[in-house]
Amino acid sequence: MSNQKLFTVAVVGATGAVGEQMIRLLEERNFPIQELKLLSSKRSAGTKLRFKGREITVEEATPESFQGVEIALFSAGGDVSKELCPVAAGAGAVCIDNTSAFRMDPDTPLVVPEVNIDKINEHKGIIANPNCSTIQMVQVLKPLHDRFGVSRVIVSTYQAVSGAGARAVEELWRQSKEIVNGNEVKPDILPVSSLPVKHQIAFNAIPQIDKFLDNGFTNEEMKMTRETKKIMGDDSIEVSATCVRIPVAYGHSESVYVELKQDFDVEEVKRLLADAPGVVLQDDPAKQLYPLAASAAGKLDTFVGRVRRDLSNPRGLHMWIVSDNLLKGAAWNAVQIAEYIAIQA
Amino acid sequence: MSNQKLFTVAVVGATGAVGEQMIRLLEERNFPIQELKLLSSKRSAGTKLRFKGREITVEEATPESFQGVEIALFSAGGDVSKELCPVAAGAGAVCIDNTSAFRMDPDTPLVVPEVNIDKINEHKGIIANPNCSTIQMVQVLKPLHDRFGVSRVIVSTYQAVSGAGARAVEELWRQSKEIVNGNEVKPDILPVSSLPVKHQIAFNAIPQIDKFLDNGFTNEEMKMTRETKKIMGDDSIEVSATCVRIPVAYGHSESVYVELKQDFDVEEVKRLLADAPGVVLQDDPAKQLYPLAASAAGKLDTFVGRVRRDLSNPRGLHMWIVSDNLLKGAAWNAVQIAEYIAIQA
Repeated sequence: MSNQKLFTVAVVGATGAVGEQMIRLLEERNFPIQELKLLSSKRSAGTKLRFKGREITVEEATPESFQGVEIALFSAGGDVSKELCPVAAGAGAVCIDNTSAFRMDPDTPLVVPEVNIDKINEHKGIIANPNCSTIQMVQVLKPLHDRFGVSRVIVSTYQAVSGAGARAVEELWRQSKEIVNGNEVKPDILPVSSLPVKHQIAFNAIPQIDKFLDNGFTNEEMKMTRETKKIMGDDSIEVSATCVRIPVAYGHSESVYVELKQDFDVEEVKRLLADAPGVVLQDDPAKQLYPLAASAAGKLDTFVGRVRRDLSNPRGLHMWIVSDNLLKGAAWNAVQIAEYIAIQA
Repeated sequence: MSNQKLFTVAVVGATGAVGEQMIRLLEERNFPIQELKLLSSKRSAGTKLRFKGREITVEEATPESFQGVEIALFSAGGDVSKELCPVAAGAGAVCIDNTSAFRMDPDTPLVVPEVNIDKINEHKGIIANPNCSTIQMVQVLKPLHDRFGVSRVIVSTYQAVSGAGARAVEELWRQSKEIVNGNEVKPDILPVSSLPVKHQIAFNAIPQIDKFLDNGFTNEEMKMTRETKKIMGDDSIEVSATCVRIPVAYGHSESVYVELKQDFDVEEVKRLLADAPGVVLQDDPAKQLYPLAASAAGKLDTFVGRVRRDLSNPRGLHMWIVSDNLLKGAAWNAVQIAEYIAIQA
């Protein structure tokens, strides 16, 4: 990347769980940065963070923050994105937004680079980063859809608490400590910080992520339905999800059942997955090899295993898909998009 | 139960996680006992256990142990059952066997009292207790099958470590303590104590319970397939399972998708489930009410919620089913069967 143009980059939500990973990845990937602006809420402003050996003071994100910014990575909640992405885009920045604010907006491309990088230039200043649970699934569905056609998906998730933010991770550690010491716990954050009822997450499984809708599904579950159609560019793909929070800090696991439109050979499916970009096949039952959240945490890839044909539907396929929800599920997918933008410039 | 006949009862595997619950339930339910014999492996023989204020010394289970025993509850592993159930039955006992040794034997009824109590008298000395993950599912499927017909089930489980025995629970507590204190862990028991590869269970999800078969499914998964057909008395019901161990001590959760043969109304489904014996409907999204392993632990019932229609198949239904795997999933189902035998005597 010699003679590479250097960019003024902003990270909005720099002190959050995803923001922290975005900054780390920009450094590790040696992203071509002229100036890095770290932005946050008023509450976190003043925090000092390190980037390439220098200390950068986090500033409050305001409409004035985006003067001269060329690429802005947003992960500070939907309300912040709704207010500030249009401002940043108006000031000339390309916004890569990790919230759900613009994902279903017809003018906003929703991009997983391995799936639909061709949409990246259709933006009007904002590119949306999909939901964590969707990204790792569509990465695996893509080669199968191209080869056989995917008609329908039933997915049950095993999601890490870091998807609910750094305070939820602290809550998991705190509750785990109390319970192994024989004490009672008082849930405080999960399942949904803005809702009144809280449930214990340590040594429990909570079948609620985000709020419920009238159809009995949660917002998180409907994100998997809607976002999959948009990213795959095929409204005929049906997805019904059950999204569950489990006591894991980092790494979402998914039990995915897929109905394909054509007959398939399981060995060919495995070859397609082994060759898919960003996907690692870990599938050797004799060696007890399959993806595990504890092993995927900290890695950029998405892991797939337990690949097998359904017992009753010969066009049905089961898989176990795992990825780090803060990395490919959030920060890494966003930084990947930023890298494509940088390369094109 | 005045003038009730009193029984000589044996518990084989008295010092195990399930045996302990069997003894507690026999006491709590005031089971009509003349004499209680507590049996175990040679290793655990000599242990003293309390029953109704008295101390009973655990003896080694041998072929001679069953003289005069009328009801024998077995939960000491399949090999012990294979050896000793026929001996005990030959000596005149009715064996209620919690292992998989005789479950698929055509001469052995496989009984969940709420589903097929009519099979209880078809035994030849041995009645099999189904696998924990199967019991709670068929309890919920039964009223739906009677009313609409169940054609097909896809289930992903979230199973507690106590299903792998007391040492697996100790391993979960030990690993959890180490990790919250920032230490490394060395897995020792899970996923399968007799297999060479071990995986961390604390803050992880392991998609393997029991050994793998040639079709890519595990034994645990195939138990759900085969046992459901036998208990429901309908070989046409297809079940494909993904069985996963999660860091929960007590209480299995299941994300269950069912295809029914007839059109259904979701409210009628909820009414049927609310009225089903041994089943408690916990389903009020507005109040964030749904079954939770942490709440179901220690209870005898099976809990169901998150009842909703599939998004693409109008005859598809999603549910979340939770029960204490050591109680309804093992000890309680066995003691229930013993109670039916006692009532008939």
